[in-house]
Amino acid sequence: MRYNNGKEENKNWIISEDTFDSYHLGKCESIMCLGNGYLGVRSSTEESYINAMRGTFIAGSFNKCEANEVTELPNIPDVIGMELLLDGTQFSLDKGQVIDYSRDINLKNGQLTRTFIWVYNNLKYKFTIHRFVSLENIHLVCQKIEMTPLSQDMELELKSGINGQVTNNGAAHFVEGDKRIYENRFIQYVTKTNESDIAFFVNTTHNISIDCCLCDSQGLSAMDRRKVLLEHNIIVPKGSKLVIEKISNFHTTNDCDNKIHDLKALKEYTYRRLEKQANVGYDELFKRSSTVWLEKVWNNYKIEIKGCDYTQLAIRFAIYHMIIMTPVHDNRMNIAAKGLTGEGYKGHSFWDTDIFVLPFYVYSNPKIARKLLENRYLSIDAARNKAKQEGYEGAMYPWESASINDGEVTPLWGNADVVTGLPIKIWTGILEQHISADITFAIWQYYMITDDLNYMEKYGYEIIFDTATFWASRVELQDNKYVIKNVIGPDEYKEHVDNNAFTNYMAHFNVSLAIFYYEHLSKNNKRLFDRLNKKIGIRRKYSSWKDCIDKLVLPQPNEDGIIPQADGYLDKKIIKLEKYRNQSQVGNLFKDYNLEQINQMQVLKQADVLLLIFLLESSFSKDVKIANWNYYEPKTLHDSSLSLATHSILANDLGNSELAYSLLNRTIDIDMGQKMKSSDWGIHAASLGGIWQCVVLGFGGVRMVGGILRIEPELPKQWDELKFTIYYKRCKLLIVVDKKKMRITRKGDSLKTICFVHKDLKYELGDKIIIML
Amino acid sequence: MRYNNGKEENKNWIISEDTFDSYHLGKCESIMCLGNGYLGVRSSTEESYINAMRGTFIAGSFNKCEANEVTELPNIPDVIGMELLLDGTQFSLDKGQVIDYSRDINLKNGQLTRTFIWVYNNLKYKFTIHRFVSLENIHLVCQKIEMTPLSQDMELELKSGINGQVTNNGAAHFVEGDKRIYENRFIQYVTKTNESDIAFFVNTTHNISIDCCLCDSQGLSAMDRRKVLLEHNIIVPKGSKLVIEKISNFHTTNDCDNKIHDLKALKEYTYRRLEKQANVGYDELFKRSSTVWLEKVWNNYKIEIKGCDYTQLAIRFAIYHMIIMTPVHDNRMNIAAKGLTGEGYKGHSFWDTDIFVLPFYVYSNPKIARKLLENRYLSIDAARNKAKQEGYEGAMYPWESASINDGEVTPLWGNADVVTGLPIKIWTGILEQHISADITFAIWQYYMITDDLNYMEKYGYEIIFDTATFWASRVELQDNKYVIKNVIGPDEYKEHVDNNAFTNYMAHFNVSLAIFYYEHLSKNNKRLFDRLNKKIGIRRKYSSWKDCIDKLVLPQPNEDGIIPQADGYLDKKIIKLEKYRNQSQVGNLFKDYNLEQINQMQVLKQADVLLLIFLLESSFSKDVKIANWNYYEPKTLHDSSLSLATHSILANDLGNSELAYSLLNRTIDIDMGQKMKSSDWGIHAASLGGIWQCVVLGFGGVRMVGGILRIEPELPKQWDELKFTIYYKRCKLLIVVDKKKMRITRKGDSLKTICFVHKDLKYELGDKIIIML
Repeated sequence: MRYNNGKEENKNWIISEDTFDSYHLGKCESIMCLGNGYLGVRSSTEESYINAMRGTFIAGSFNKCEANEVTELPNIPDVIGMELLLDGTQFSLDKGQVIDYSRDINLKNGQLTRTFIWVYNNLKYKFTIHRFVSLENIHLVCQKIEMTPLSQDMELELKSGINGQVTNNGAAHFVEGDKRIYENRFIQYVTKTNESDIAFFVNTTHNISIDCCLCDSQGLSAMDRRKVLLEHNIIVPKGSKLVIEKISNFHTTNDCDNKIHDLKALKEYTYRRLEKQANVGYDELFKRSSTVWLEKVWNNYKIEIKGCDYTQLAIRFAIYHMIIMTPVHDNRMNIAAKGLTGEGYKGHSFWDTDIFVLPFYVYSNPKIARKLLENRYLSIDAARNKAKQEGYEGAMYPWESASINDGEVTPLWGNADVVTGLPIKIWTGILEQHISADITFAIWQYYMITDDLNYMEKYGYEIIFDTATFWASRVELQDNKYVIKNVIGPDEYKEHVDNNAFTNYMAHFNVSLAIFYYEHLSKNNKRLFDRLNKKIGIRRKYSSWKDCIDKLVLPQPNEDGIIPQADGYLDKKIIKLEKYRNQSQVGNLFKDYNLEQINQMQVLKQADVLLLIFLLESSFSKDVKIANWNYYEPKTLHDSSLSLATHSILANDLGNSELAYSLLNRTIDIDMGQKMKSSDWGIHAASLGGIWQCVVLGFGGVRMVGGILRIEPELPKQWDELKFTIYYKRCKLLIVVDKKKMRITRKGDSLKTICFVHKDLKYELGDKIIIML
Repeated sequence: MRYNNGKEENKNWIISEDTFDSYHLGKCESIMCLGNGYLGVRSSTEESYINAMRGTFIAGSFNKCEANEVTELPNIPDVIGMELLLDGTQFSLDKGQVIDYSRDINLKNGQLTRTFIWVYNNLKYKFTIHRFVSLENIHLVCQKIEMTPLSQDMELELKSGINGQVTNNGAAHFVEGDKRIYENRFIQYVTKTNESDIAFFVNTTHNISIDCCLCDSQGLSAMDRRKVLLEHNIIVPKGSKLVIEKISNFHTTNDCDNKIHDLKALKEYTYRRLEKQANVGYDELFKRSSTVWLEKVWNNYKIEIKGCDYTQLAIRFAIYHMIIMTPVHDNRMNIAAKGLTGEGYKGHSFWDTDIFVLPFYVYSNPKIARKLLENRYLSIDAARNKAKQEGYEGAMYPWESASINDGEVTPLWGNADVVTGLPIKIWTGILEQHISADITFAIWQYYMITDDLNYMEKYGYEIIFDTATFWASRVELQDNKYVIKNVIGPDEYKEHVDNNAFTNYMAHFNVSLAIFYYEHLSKNNKRLFDRLNKKIGIRRKYSSWKDCIDKLVLPQPNEDGIIPQADGYLDKKIIKLEKYRNQSQVGNLFKDYNLEQINQMQVLKQADVLLLIFLLESSFSKDVKIANWNYYEPKTLHDSSLSLATHSILANDLGNSELAYSLLNRTIDIDMGQKMKSSDWGIHAASLGGIWQCVVLGFGGVRMVGGILRIEPELPKQWDELKFTIYYKRCKLLIVVDKKKMRITRKGDSLKTICFVHKDLKYELGDKIIIML
C-alpha cells in the first residue's frame, strides 16, 4: 500500500496499491470498497481471479437462506465483473507483464481508479478503469473502462451483464430470477431472496465508444442460470481509445424510497431510470456524486492534522468508511460490524455501533446518531421477546442484530476445536449480555451531548427502563448479594464467567440511570411517566431496580489495585504470550489451545476492565487505572479490532502520549496497514470509529464525563496542529489545538450557554476562547 | 489434443493434452472425466482457475433446490481441489513457465496423469500428479501428487480437505453440513440435499511422505462455511520427492449398498472405511481398480480396428465413457445425457439412453441393458401420472427423467430470444412425445436380440401396452383419420407441428407391437394376459389400438419420394445454410433468428425422417431412403449430437462408405476432436453410443431388422480389419471382418441355433462360419 500519490490537490486523500497481487485480493477489495450506506460494492476487479471475493450488498436486505443458518446480508447479483478477451487472450494480470500499475481509492470523491499497461504476447494495451457508487443517487453504480491498444489493432470480445450466480461462501440466498434484455442494450435481472421475499431489480447497460464516437456494436444476448449478458465483438484501431461505460442500478422492494409496489411496474420503472442515467453518462454522473462528497461529507466532517500525513489520511479513511457504512436513508437499518464491505459477521450489527462508531456521529452529526438510536428502539420488541425466551423480563438486546424483528441472529457454530476436531459452539449470542447496558450508555451519552429530549421522551427512557428491568430480572441472589453468573464479557476468551466486572458495572450504571430518570420523570413529566408506566409498568419495577442496585456485586480492586475481570480470574494460569502478541494474523492462540484451555489462562482478546475504565472513568481513581493498565495490557492479544483504540485513548489519559500514538497507528493499521489478510472479510467498523475516537476523544481530549463536557487535548509530538469540529448541545464548535494552546470557536448563532471543563476549571464559552496548554 | 503417446503398450489407449490453456478447461475436464457409474469426477486440476468447472456427481442423488427449478443432479462437495503455496507463491500454471507439460487420460486403467516442470521466480519444480476413481470400490477417489523442488529446498503450504461451497452454477443444493476432523488427520463433511433429503458423507485424508518416509506433519485444522480443511507446512529438501496421497470416499443414504441407516453410525462407518483405505495406499488401490478395468471392461468389450489408430482410440474412448456413465449398480438410475461428466442437462435422462446408448449394451452386455430397461419400468407410474396430468391415458414417458418418481423434469425456460429479449420457453417437456414409442422400440430390440422373455413378462409387455394406450388416447380424429397434432419431433427446430413423420410412424409401430403381443399373449399365455388385463385393462383398450392403427396418418413420400417431416414442412422457406453448417460451435442459427422464425424455415437441428428410416428401415424402399437423404441432409445443421452417427450409418447403408467414414469422424470429433468448447458441460452420451453404433451397426453391418439378425459389414477403405464381439440370443459371437471376408466364431457352449441373414441369404451358425465379401 502507498499513501501519497504526489499531487498536491490529492495529498492525503488517496490510498494506492502499487503492485497487483492476485493472491491477496481481499485487502483492497475491502478497504477500497465503494458505497453510500445503501449499497456497498467491494472493489473486486472487472476481470476475475480465483482468490477474489466479489461482493455487492444492500443495507437491510437480510435473508435466512435455510432453516439451520442465521439471517444474513446476502451477496447480491454482480455487475462489476466482465470477461475481456483481448486478441483471443483472456485478460488477466497474472499473465504477461504489468507496467505502471496503480489502483487508487480517492477518498475525496469516492472514485476507484486502476491504471496500467499490460503486455502479453508482445502486444501492449493501456488501461484506465474508473468506478464509483453514487452518493447523489444511492441506487447507482458506474464503471468506465478505457483501453488503448498500443501495438496493433485490437480485437476485443467483451462479455458483460449481470451475474446472479453469487453466493455467500456457497450459501445461496436467491431464487432463479427473471431475465430480460431490452432493445438489445438494457439488461435486467430480477430475483428474490428465498425466505425474506425481498425482490431485487438490477439493470445495467453499456455505452461503448471509440475515440469519443459512439459504437453501434450490436450485442449478442446470452442467458445462463442466474446470469444474463451481452457479448460484444469490437475492433479497436491501434492508438484509438475504446471507452466502455457500464451504468447499473439496484433497487429492492425493501427500499424505503419505493413509491411503486407492483413488481411489473417496478421492473419497468427501474429500467426506465437506468435508461435516463445511461444517457447522462459516466462523467456527468460522477461529477454529481463527487459534489455530494465534497459538500455533504468533507465540508461537514473536516478534520485537519498538521505534521503527520499518515494520520491525516487515516482519519479521512475512517470517515470515508463511516459514511459508506451508515444507512442514513432508513432507520430500520443499523451499521454492520464490517459495514457493507464484506460477508464477515454476516452483515450483523453489534455493540460496535453503539460504543465505537456512534460517538463520531453524536459529536459530528447528531441527526444520524439519532437515527441509529431510533433503530435500537425499533427493535425493542425483539429484545423483549429475547428476554422472555431466556426467562427474563424487560428488554434483552440481541448480541447480533439483523432486521429489526429478527431478534438474536448470532450463529451457533464456529471453526474447529483443535483438540476435539469438532466445530466450536459460539456462546456470545446467549451469554454476551452487556450489550443491553452498552446501548443504554450510548443513549445517555447521546442525550448528554445533544440535549435531544424529544428522542428521550419518544424512545430513550423506555429503552433505559426496560433494559434496567432486564438486569433486575437477570441478577441472582447469593449470600444476600446479587451476582451475574455465566456471562461473556468484552474479553471473549473467557466464557461462562461470573461477575464479569465490565458487565456488572455497566448493568449497575444502566439500572442507576433508570432510577435517576424514573425519579426525574415522576416529578417533572407526569404525563410521560404515566404513559410509560401504563406501557411497561415502571412503577412496579422501580423497587426491583433499587433492590438490584443496592445488592449488585461490583468487583473491587484488590490490594494491588487490580479489579478482577471476573470471579477467580486472578488465580488463572499466566502464560508467555510473546508469540501471539507479535502475530501477523489474529487468532493464532487457537492454533495451539482450545477455548476450554484458554478459559483457564490469564490472556485477553481485548480490553475488558480497561474499556470499563474508559467508559465509566469517573468511577475509578488514577491509581487504579494505572495498576489495571499495567496488569492487563501485557496480557492482551488485541485479537479484537475493538481493543487498540481504547488502549490508545487510555494511554493518553495516563500520560503516555507516545504509546498512545503508537497504539493509534496500530489501530489504523488494522485496515489501512500492510497486513494483507486482516480485512479480507470486510473492514472493521469499530476500529474505524476507534480511529476517530483516538483523534478527537483521545488526543483532542473531548470527553463527556458525568454529563459534563471536558476538553483536555494532548497532542502527540508528531502533530503540530489538530483542527476539528464538534456539535455540543446543538452548537457547532471549531476546536483548533496546537502544542501551546487550544482555540475554541463557536459557529452559528445559538444563544445557549456552553460550559466545559479543562483541567478541573469550568469555562463558559462565548464566541471564542483560547486556553494556553 | 494428442492421440498417441508413443509407448507401444499404451498405443491407442491414451488421450493427451499437450499445452495447458486456462481459458479452455471444460473440454478436458469432461472428456478426461473419471468415474464408475456411481461417481463421476470431472478432471479439474488440483489448483483452481477461474474458468474451471469443478464437478463431482453421484448417480441418482437428485434434488430440486427450489420450487421454481426442476430436479437436477447436484454438484457435490469437492475433494479434488487443493491450494498449494510454493515458496510463498500460489501455484498456478498461468504464472511462470511450464515445461514438458502433458495431461493424459489412460482409458485402459482409468488413470489421469499430469506431468510438467514449473518454473517461477527462477525456482524449478517437477510435478507428477495421478488420480483415479476406483472401479473396484465405487465409493473411492484417490489422488497422488508428486513434487520435487529442483533448484532449492521448498517451503510448501498445503490447504486441502473438503469444499462444500459448490453449486450448480449458483444453485445451491445442500444445507450447511457437519464438519469433523478425527485424529488431526481424517476430515469428514456430512451434508444433506435441501429437498430430497439425501445425506452425503465425504471423508478424506492425506498420506504425506518425503523420499518414501512418512511425514509426521501436524495438520492445522480450518473450518469455514461448508468447508473443512487441514493446513500443512512442509519443508522439502532440494531434489527430494514429496508425495501427497489424498484418499477420499463418498457415500449417501441413497446408496443401494447401504446396510446402515443411522446417520451417526454411517458417519463412523464411512470414516472407518476411509481409515482402512488410506492405510492401503494409492498404489495398491490403483492396482485393484486397474485390474477391474482390464478384466471386467476391456476383456469383455474389446473391439479392434486395424488400419486406423484414431478410430481404434475413439471406440475405446466411447466404451470408456459408456462404462463410467452407466449406473450398473442400481436400476433406480438411468444414464444421463452427459453421463456423470458435467452439469449439462441437469443429469437428466432422455431417449439418448434408449435409442443411442442401449444398443451397445444390448449387443455387448445384455444384463446391463436389462437394468436400464428395468429403470423404464420402475418409472411407469410416473409416466402414467404424466399421461393423466396431460389429459391422456396409459403411460406417457417424460421427455427428461430424473428419479423414478419425479415424472417430467424438463425445465421450462431457456436462453434469450434474440428478437424479444425474453427467455425462450422450452416446449420439449410438453410436446416431444415420441420418447414413449422410442422406449417401446428399445424394449422390442432388446427382446429380439436377447430372447429375454422374463423381462417381457415382468416389465416389457406392460410398457408396450400402456404406451400404446397413451397413443390411442393421444391421436385426434380429423376427416375420419387420426392425426397427432402439436408435437416436437427429433428435429427440435420445429415446434408445434402436426403429423410429424417420426412421431406418427413410431407411434404406429408402438401400437402395432401392442396389438401383436396382445394377440400373442391372449393365445399363448392366458395367465399373464389376465394379470395384465386386470392391472391395466388391455382387453378394454385393444379396440382403441386397432382403431388407432387403422386410421393413423402416416405421411407418405411425395412425387419426389420425399416424406414431409410434418404437415406443411415442404412449403417452408429454404435458406442458405453454409454459414451455420461450417460453424465451430452449435446453435449459431439462434444468434440470427429466433425460434419463431426458424419454425418457418426448412432447416433441421438433427436427423428426423432419416432417423426414422434408420430405425424402421424395412418400412421404406431404397429409393425413398436415397431421396430423403438427398433432400434432408443438406438442410441439417447437426446441432444435436444425435445426428451425425445416424447419418454415418445411413450413408454406409446407401453405399457411400467414404462419406460414412467422414461422418463417423465428425461424430468422434464432437467430444474427442479439437473444438475446445463443445464438451464444456459434459460429454455427449448419445454420440458416444453413436460411435459404437457406427462401428458395429454401421461398418460392422450388424443389424436386427424385423426381429432377424442381419450381418452385412462394409469396412471403410482406411480399415484393414474390424474385430468385435456381440451377444445374440445369449450366444457370444466373435466377428472378424476384413476387406475380403467375414469370420464369425461362436464362443461358449450354448446349443441354440443362431440364424442370420447376409445379402438376402439366410445362414445357420455352427461353431464358425466364413463368408467371402
